[in-house]
Amino acid sequence: MSGETTAWTARVITLFPSAFPGVLGESLTGKALHDGLWRLETIDLRNFGIGRHRNVDDTPAGGGAGMVLRADVLGPAIEAAQADSLAAPLIYLSPRGRPMDQALMRDLAAGPGVTLICGRFEGVDERVLQHYDVQEVSLGDFVLTGGEIAAQALIDATVRLLPDVLGNADSAVNESFDADLLEHPHYTRPAEWQGRPIPEVLMSGHHGRIAEWRQQQAEAITRTRRPDLWARHIARNAPDKA
Amino acid sequence: MSGETTAWTARVITLFPSAFPGVLGESLTGKALHDGLWRLETIDLRNFGIGRHRNVDDTPAGGGAGMVLRADVLGPAIEAAQADSLAAPLIYLSPRGRPMDQALMRDLAAGPGVTLICGRFEGVDERVLQHYDVQEVSLGDFVLTGGEIAAQALIDATVRLLPDVLGNADSAVNESFDADLLEHPHYTRPAEWQGRPIPEVLMSGHHGRIAEWRQQQAEAITRTRRPDLWARHIARNAPDKA
Repeated sequence: MSGETTAWTARVITLFPSAFPGVLGESLTGKALHDGLWRLETIDLRNFGIGRHRNVDDTPAGGGAGMVLRADVLGPAIEAAQADSLAAPLIYLSPRGRPMDQALMRDLAAGPGVTLICGRFEGVDERVLQHYDVQEVSLGDFVLTGGEIAAQALIDATVRLLPDVLGNADSAVNESFDADLLEHPHYTRPAEWQGRPIPEVLMSGHHGRIAEWRQQQAEAITRTRRPDLWARHIARNAPDKA
Repeated sequence: MSGETTAWTARVITLFPSAFPGVLGESLTGKALHDGLWRLETIDLRNFGIGRHRNVDDTPAGGGAGMVLRADVLGPAIEAAQADSLAAPLIYLSPRGRPMDQALMRDLAAGPGVTLICGRFEGVDERVLQHYDVQEVSLGDFVLTGGEIAAQALIDATVRLLPDVLGNADSAVNESFDADLLEHPHYTRPAEWQGRPIPEVLMSGHHGRIAEWRQQQAEAITRTRRPDLWARHIARNAPDKA
């Protein structure tokens, strides 16, 4: 509207535009949206449907259960979404994609925005993915009824990395995954609860010992719970052995 | 209200109850919710806050950025949520947790429901997790502003596995991850789009060849994109070598 066309912009192609902003309209992401630190546009896939009933899907070629989103419906929706944002990455949320991680979020936050395709039913016609060279990104190794929740996860995790979105800039540094480590445990008042005290070191006021304890806790938790992350952490901290 | 107290029930402890059902109120999950095939209850954490301002958080013991949810606020909320559902698993959505996968969703769908704790800020006081023996489950290796989107992902992926939720029962079998394989590509009408035809085999009407082609495609995509899944698929299909 104003000269604010340069704000980071998420464009979402979906059959359920009313699901947005959803929880993205609350809390930090909601305040940042209201303040113009990022923009959200939904593209209603139904508007690109065919015929009187605006059909968007058809039965799978070769048979089988479910329905597939048509290439000649999704294609025009993608072109409409990309019309003024050719530079934004085009991503299809799909369990066949590259698993989302913090590195992807940092890459996306550094760019102009993102265009997201939310599938429904069995999926989308493969030819659309090939023709537009769409990146496939997965929320995880499970199946959702549609891509909307995955899109919201991606937007939430990216928007919080944009400048000025987090109240305390410190909060986005030294957090989970930046060093391939899980976070250390947190404690706050009261000093004792249900017979359980806060660990003594945290009450010592000795910053060096506290930092050391937190690092040890983070390493121990990562080693126990996520041997895969731990292996990456080790490799990162011993690059000469790589 | 009626005798429907046995329906699968998701209880969600959150500071943002208005974010629910969100997209879960649409499409298949929304229809199933309306039809009583599952139930959704939100527990507003703010109601358990302390003092005139109903404070729920405090600064981290030992210093550092952000705020931590208090044990003496979250504890009573958990007890209220579990009062009539002691049998339901208690899960905290946290990047330090076990990564969500389809096996977890199947386990949860087979039970009476789930109680979900949505964190905000830096996290929750560790003593709550210990005292109530809370399971930690992670949406993925990235950081969200809160647990609400992760909770919705878990509920969506679980509810669609409940009896009668999917229109066509076939759709939940033979899909991604049930054999540690990604799905084969999908195609539908039109037969040619942007100069790209549907692969000939899918138009052949030969069910055997179609099934074989799809299996080969699923294997090739999994091998290329997800060597980790592929290794599990191989191990599963050659148990004598394990």
